Amino acid sequence: MPQFRLAIDAMSGDNGLKTIINGIVEAKQLCGDSFMVYLCGDAARIQAGLKDCGALSWYASGEIKIEHCIDSIASGDIPSLVWKTRANAPIIRCISLQKEGVADASISAGDTGVLLGASIFILGRLKGTARPALAAFLPTTKKRHILLLDVGANLNCRVDHLVSFGMMGYSYVQKYFSLALPRVGLLSIGKEPTKGTKVLFETARELKRLCRGFVGFVEGSDVLLGEADVVVCDGFAGNVLLKACESFHLLALSVLGRNGEVAEKIRNDIAVLDPENYGAVPFLGIKGIVLKAHGSSTSTAIANAIMTAITAIKKNALALTNAPAAKGKP
Amino acid sequence: MPQFRLAIDAMSGDNGLKTIINGIVEAKQLCGDSFMVYLCGDAARIQAGLKDCGALSWYASGEIKIEHCIDSIASGDIPSLVWKTRANAPIIRCISLQKEGVADASISAGDTGVLLGASIFILGRLKGTARPALAAFLPTTKKRHILLLDVGANLNCRVDHLVSFGMMGYSYVQKYFSLALPRVGLLSIGKEPTKGTKVLFETARELKRLCRGFVGFVEGSDVLLGEADVVVCDGFAGNVLLKACESFHLLALSVLGRNGEVAEKIRNDIAVLDPENYGAVPFLGIKGIVLKAHGSSTSTAIANAIMTAITAIKKNALALTNAPAAKGKP
Repeated sequence: MPQFRLAIDAMSGDNGLKTIINGIVEAKQLCGDSFMVYLCGDAARIQAGLKDCGALSWYASGEIKIEHCIDSIASGDIPSLVWKTRANAPIIRCISLQKEGVADASISAGDTGVLLGASIFILGRLKGTARPALAAFLPTTKKRHILLLDVGANLNCRVDHLVSFGMMGYSYVQKYFSLALPRVGLLSIGKEPTKGTKVLFETARELKRLCRGFVGFVEGSDVLLGEADVVVCDGFAGNVLLKACESFHLLALSVLGRNGEVAEKIRNDIAVLDPENYGAVPFLGIKGIVLKAHGSSTSTAIANAIMTAITAIKKNALALTNAPAAKGKP
Repeated sequence: MPQFRLAIDAMSGDNGLKTIINGIVEAKQLCGDSFMVYLCGDAARIQAGLKDCGALSWYASGEIKIEHCIDSIASGDIPSLVWKTRANAPIIRCISLQKEGVADASISAGDTGVLLGASIFILGRLKGTARPALAAFLPTTKKRHILLLDVGANLNCRVDHLVSFGMMGYSYVQKYFSLALPRVGLLSIGKEPTKGTKVLFETARELKRLCRGFVGFVEGSDVLLGEADVVVCDGFAGNVLLKACESFHLLALSVLGRNGEVAEKIRNDIAVLDPENYGAVPFLGIKGIVLKAHGSSTSTAIANAIMTAITAIKKNALALTNAPAAKGKP
């Protein structure tokens, strides 16, 4: 009996069902732990996909189970309500399987808003969390990763949201790196307390009052320089920043060449930012392990997402859900 | 008689008056063109600084003139009103010298909002410009630079501001690269038209209607990949993105080493993003050449800002103000 039970949204992502299945196959080959998967989606299509990808033996052995669900999300649906109106959509079914105690973690490359809504309303928020956030680790010149949140779940943030991100990030990184006093920075356009927006000024005041590790404003250039351990921002700026960082290694490879030792180093140490490598990012502030994979995830990204999920279950701590798998080594 | 006349805010920047003066000295040594400078600030301090930096001979020859002004901006001042309430502050005096026809361009490392306010209200907006914007060039994997705007002048943007940035960027890049149809992208968190905010959805609709080159939403990862020629965003996201990109070469150097051929390539071809190299960024949409230098500008950055300004005056086209000096070669 496999130790770990994952619910995976088979119908999500830009690259189709076979990419998801190939990701599972890759993880089966790479992962030292035994795991089983509930593949949520259209049963006939999944079965055909398993055959095409040479994965039928895992279906036969019960290591891959099909959770038939065919509801799909329409363009007019309100993301935060889909958990109720489309309860039989694969992305929602994954979260329900967790709620029912059947799965230990969920992975979807689907819509962030839908996944967030389902996570909040089906699994629930952790106590004291104004808004759950998507969090990601980024490498720095200081050799220790920083945690950036939110990276895309909340585009318009109120003061209490941002304060909540700061508190979650502080406690998360404190446990993750065994730090006595993680430094929490608030992303702005300058370090001066007079630069920024009203929401940022008020957030800074609150964080100064509530968060021992608050170090004030940090700028876009401070992130990769490791000037803080946690960087708090709204999901729009965080998403833009994360994705720009993800593309850095491609610029470096285009300038420095795609082969040889230098290219290898770039791929290993700069492209940790590559979504291929980290696979998926977790929601913080949710009662459960829910991972959001990139829409453009390849099979390798899905395999890494699976290993990230397994690490999170193993550590049995939501505060540790964000362990980057494979090459990720913060 | 020097050909080019620059007004420089001597009291701006984090590194003090001597950094500004040393920047002028560096530019005097590097620049093939003869130019004169109106140094705006406290006359006694400037004179002492010129002496310390060995620059008195240019003062004697009239190539550096001192424009005595001692008003300073208080923390309670409203940036957009300072042009009126602190008319004798150095940063405002620079713009006034331009308006009076005494200077051809201004450079300040001071507050962006103050500089923008003075530029709008003293020099005026170009026809059809809802809001002037700060614009910066970034390198891409496609070997052609992209223009990012706004990068920090406008933190909260309305639809008409963003549309205006798109139109200014389109026309600017069209002239700059002699492109028939520059591609204008709108920065968002996904390419799908359903992802983003209401303001972005409406901006996209307007740009589709008004701008022939509009290609829809682009993501943070598309910028360095050159998926557009112009990327439009609010000044908060743009500032974060630009500054993150500026720090990237430092991460690359920390991973790949600071010496040797690879480091040299990084410094030449990736660190174009380094503010040291581009010196300053221009406001688009203003009747005059106004350059905003980084608060943290070194003397080299100031020297490059001076050369950028001279290039802009030479081309006698506001549409070409953004020519990165020195290493910049878009």
